[in-house]
Amino acid sequence: MTDITMIRSAAARLKGHARRTPLLSSPFLDEIAGRRVFVKPECLQHTGSFKYRGARSAVSALDSDTRARGVIAFSSGNHAQGVALAAREHGVASVIIMPGDSPRMKIDNTRALGAEVVLYDRATEDRDAIGARLAGERGLTLIKPYDEPQVIAGQGTIGLEIAEDAVALGVAEADVLVCCGGGGLTSGIALALEADAPGLRARPCEPQGFDDVTRSLASGKIERNAHLSGSLCDAIITPQPGEITFPIMQRLCGPGLVVSEDECLHAMALAWSRLKVVAEPGGAAALAAALFHADQIDGDAVFATISGGNVDAEVFQTALTRFA
Amino acid sequence: MTDITMIRSAAARLKGHARRTPLLSSPFLDEIAGRRVFVKPECLQHTGSFKYRGARSAVSALDSDTRARGVIAFSSGNHAQGVALAAREHGVASVIIMPGDSPRMKIDNTRALGAEVVLYDRATEDRDAIGARLAGERGLTLIKPYDEPQVIAGQGTIGLEIAEDAVALGVAEADVLVCCGGGGLTSGIALALEADAPGLRARPCEPQGFDDVTRSLASGKIERNAHLSGSLCDAIITPQPGEITFPIMQRLCGPGLVVSEDECLHAMALAWSRLKVVAEPGGAAALAAALFHADQIDGDAVFATISGGNVDAEVFQTALTRFA
Repeated sequence: MTDITMIRSAAARLKGHARRTPLLSSPFLDEIAGRRVFVKPECLQHTGSFKYRGARSAVSALDSDTRARGVIAFSSGNHAQGVALAAREHGVASVIIMPGDSPRMKIDNTRALGAEVVLYDRATEDRDAIGARLAGERGLTLIKPYDEPQVIAGQGTIGLEIAEDAVALGVAEADVLVCCGGGGLTSGIALALEADAPGLRARPCEPQGFDDVTRSLASGKIERNAHLSGSLCDAIITPQPGEITFPIMQRLCGPGLVVSEDECLHAMALAWSRLKVVAEPGGAAALAAALFHADQIDGDAVFATISGGNVDAEVFQTALTRFA
Repeated sequence: MTDITMIRSAAARLKGHARRTPLLSSPFLDEIAGRRVFVKPECLQHTGSFKYRGARSAVSALDSDTRARGVIAFSSGNHAQGVALAAREHGVASVIIMPGDSPRMKIDNTRALGAEVVLYDRATEDRDAIGARLAGERGLTLIKPYDEPQVIAGQGTIGLEIAEDAVALGVAEADVLVCCGGGGLTSGIALALEADAPGLRARPCEPQGFDDVTRSLASGKIERNAHLSGSLCDAIITPQPGEITFPIMQRLCGPGLVVSEDECLHAMALAWSRLKVVAEPGGAAALAAALFHADQIDGDAVFATISGGNVDAEVFQTALTRFA
């Protein structure tokens, strides 16, 4: 199971590969939030999201014989690109299984990063069966998107960096708001903070209608989302918290925060104008919570992750038109 | 006159204040350029441009009595915000003289950073006379935007960082493309590279029709631009190279590169999609040169600055609509 030793090992394996993202801030954002806001822009990470860290951690942790046979992942989004790049950097094959109706650009990008993309028909084909067949035939190892200890360890390296920077800033107590889907990023950061910055507390941030983790933390048991589509925040929509990630979040995280899609679009526009970075809607959920739900946060400083920036031009332009 | 000792002193004064910006890259940009492209995103600097470095260097270099009387600058753009923030951080007054028809947002931003903004009528009032009167009455020190040794030293700290990162990347020889207006950034970087990375060579990048530095380097004497307005690249338009900056550029820089406005807009769209950062048109000139004028560049790697990201939403949306 993921622990701080595993996270530190992942950090050592990622050194010189994953980007050490800076903390960004703006007096204009501080004014909106009523406290200092420090933003961790993982949109600047390779492939445009934090997912590269977990993917590279997992691929690099495989023994060399296993790794040489290649890896496989199911994803139409950020995890796909992270696994593809991590595999290419190790010189091994990757197979990414994507719905045939995925946006052309995501398919093209994943292929351009060296992956073999296998498309399936959501209506008539069984994704898991295709994956199991390919994995069996070729001896591929499945890299899960969040419920996998080495993936959680990779995402936890972000927590190590936040803890280190918080010391330099003199911030000993604060909430660390994390865009949350299955909980890999949130639980990884929470474990790192427990060890290196016990005064900092991770809190998951989710879009309205897809707040499974927030409800699960409140009820004490795993709750599911009623729907799995229909949100601009597609990057952080999952059916339910992970079996591995949930107990970690339950032990270490503060209450979840729930934001609206409009708040995410507004936060995207502010990240654009004030921080000069590109956030995708789901990637802006934590910043939206910091800015627009300040009454649910304590202390004179808050940290917020931007988990990714892979967004269509049209959606981005909508954010600017409405909120810039 | 600015030298490497002055740049290192500026770096020491900026430490913990200016952001240490990362180098960004993308395999997709490498493919377009036909070589590795490393981008220095100074749009992520405080106030959204590199200008904060020079401004803070200059303000912090004043003796404390002089500084206590306050500073003054002429600027409608990035230099204004840099000086305003640097003055506020030192607890001293700043007066920024801006044209009355400046964009409302730039006036508001400069005021929000604590400056006293004095507006003048371009048609009927003499900017320099207003500045001289205010400076005389209050004992304010003028912070020039580029032809000022301590400003050049501050911008040169970017060159120190590029040199340090180039060593880590194993790049010993390469062009360093710099968005160039009056030459403060270009000459500062050139001086830092001369000392710390003699195999790296700074090259100014300018928009078509405003290529005074490129023509001056070619002719060996200071040439002027025929026009001073009418470019989207307003942030890097100046009448002519500086008296102090030009001899430095003449001694150290490679030939200039000239890009079109459309190339700048295209580079902005690629910085958005591939690097997840926001560039303003003038701030994208060097990246445009790296991507679209590759035949004028040697070597298997190139560095390009993004000098700033302060751009109106409409212009940014035009870049996305046309090129994303």
